[in-house]
Amino acid sequence: MRKILVLGGLGFIGSNIIEKLLSENDNTILVFDFPGVKNPFEDKVFMYYGDFDNEEGLERIFKTHKIDIVIHLISTTVPFESNSNISYDIEANLLPSIKLLNLCVKHNVGKIIFFSSGGTVYGIVNQEKIPENHPTNPISSHGIIKLTIEKYIQLYHYLYGINFLIVRPGNAFGPYQKSEKQGVINVFLRKIIRGEKLIIRGDGESVRDYIYVKDLAWIINELINKNINNTIVNIGSGIGLSVNELLSIIKKFAAPFEFEYIVGAKEDIPRIVLNINKLASLIDINLTSNEIGILETYNQLIKKDESQKDKSN
Amino acid sequence: MRKILVLGGLGFIGSNIIEKLLSENDNTILVFDFPGVKNPFEDKVFMYYGDFDNEEGLERIFKTHKIDIVIHLISTTVPFESNSNISYDIEANLLPSIKLLNLCVKHNVGKIIFFSSGGTVYGIVNQEKIPENHPTNPISSHGIIKLTIEKYIQLYHYLYGINFLIVRPGNAFGPYQKSEKQGVINVFLRKIIRGEKLIIRGDGESVRDYIYVKDLAWIINELINKNINNTIVNIGSGIGLSVNELLSIIKKFAAPFEFEYIVGAKEDIPRIVLNINKLASLIDINLTSNEIGILETYNQLIKKDESQKDKSN
Repeated sequence: MRKILVLGGLGFIGSNIIEKLLSENDNTILVFDFPGVKNPFEDKVFMYYGDFDNEEGLERIFKTHKIDIVIHLISTTVPFESNSNISYDIEANLLPSIKLLNLCVKHNVGKIIFFSSGGTVYGIVNQEKIPENHPTNPISSHGIIKLTIEKYIQLYHYLYGINFLIVRPGNAFGPYQKSEKQGVINVFLRKIIRGEKLIIRGDGESVRDYIYVKDLAWIINELINKNINNTIVNIGSGIGLSVNELLSIIKKFAAPFEFEYIVGAKEDIPRIVLNINKLASLIDINLTSNEIGILETYNQLIKKDESQKDKSN
Repeated sequence: MRKILVLGGLGFIGSNIIEKLLSENDNTILVFDFPGVKNPFEDKVFMYYGDFDNEEGLERIFKTHKIDIVIHLISTTVPFESNSNISYDIEANLLPSIKLLNLCVKHNVGKIIFFSSGGTVYGIVNQEKIPENHPTNPISSHGIIKLTIEKYIQLYHYLYGINFLIVRPGNAFGPYQKSEKQGVINVFLRKIIRGEKLIIRGDGESVRDYIYVKDLAWIINELINKNINNTIVNIGSGIGLSVNELLSIIKKFAAPFEFEYIVGAKEDIPRIVLNINKLASLIDINLTSNEIGILETYNQLIKKDESQKDKSN
């Protein structure tokens, strides 16, 4: 059995990854997340609650279990808001990540998988599709912290030999996404179901690389099984979609909706599309089309909405 | 009059820069440094003592004076030792630098000049001479922190319009160097004068880009006067010298000395030589040869040593 500790495992991407990892026979899953977050996996995982910056609490897990892989998904800031309190970003995300790395070395963890950010580490770029070796000039503290953690992970690999995999995902969407602060597809679909007006920051022409979270989870599982180590990998669809194009897709199947453009922010990057050649060279990828992924997400949200209505009746 | 605040101005490089800036007519110099460091400039500068992480103490300077340029030279770690306490490096250098940036924005400082590190931000490289756009993969926390501060300075420029100049100096040597932990040329010359054996980490074949600190100070003054803004510049000689080559140069004029090779450390980078084409495109440079610079440094140290002996007699 392989013991995998997922930090931030009850969040959007973490939940999807755990669901995928549990479908494999040889994984024991341990989950660490902040107190109060609901555990949908119940006794299928070992659940640990605590604060990320409480080193002693975190170390208890490593003392109880011999961990093979740590997946680090915790981030307490979103790009748009992170610039308003940079010291907090450093204290809540960078410093605890260093403590985590020290624990990994101390307890001989075989490998750390770190979720960096394909959407923020590169900054404003002119290139049509961005490869991993593109210069990195983030325009948010969130992106700078992700990049700095990447550098420290590589330093720990150099100094102590710990294996790593750094992934830079595009904009994920799909099941378990609950945030109202990020994840435009899920936010839009939920608003449409609730009959609310969509708010679009900017002119709707900003382009992102969207990836269906079930594909992302499948890719992570594949990268683990193929033991891909000590590299940085973009994970996206490699396809750019503007917000206006998203709206056109959504219009095809969703209930009618209204939308409004509001003024954008300086932190909004005009275009990010990931070059996924490296990923394709490592594993065979067969991605769900954005149209199908968005439709599936919409249908799931409708189903969930109806079951909640049933419960409240 | 131009008001320039030099943070860490009583250190090795800071003292040389202040000496140069004071030789110009239109500079008012304010100096901030840690308590207990001797001020050789006496009443030629406005001297402020305090801890870098005491924001209120630092802010008093900005409230009393309208600062035009901040030169940020403070670093409390050296590359070789920084990996042993990374949390300290973040708390003592990164967090206070963010507070400094906030003060610069709040008090409308025109420009910040940041001393990054040509010797550590690039990491282990194969290229003969490293240009500024080379990938950056430091193998010390010291280098990662320098790089992270660079990223935040560029973020503040993007968000708030503050001008910046980021310099990445090579290995400086010359007057005012006092550290025994870094600065191999000065350390060697002092040991020779004291009749002590030189200790060489590794096989003596590690190559560095050495720059005479008086040239470095002249270059900074020139970059300020030409108002070079919003760019990153390597400052070095563009010439690589191994430790063994240094010894050959020193042997030509110094008293006889003994030396011994000891085992190197993982943090020792085999080779760093800076590409200085960008610097040469910005200002006319006319550098002192390493031989002359080392000889001048030796003669100054001898003179200082003799004057100290005179005093003690």
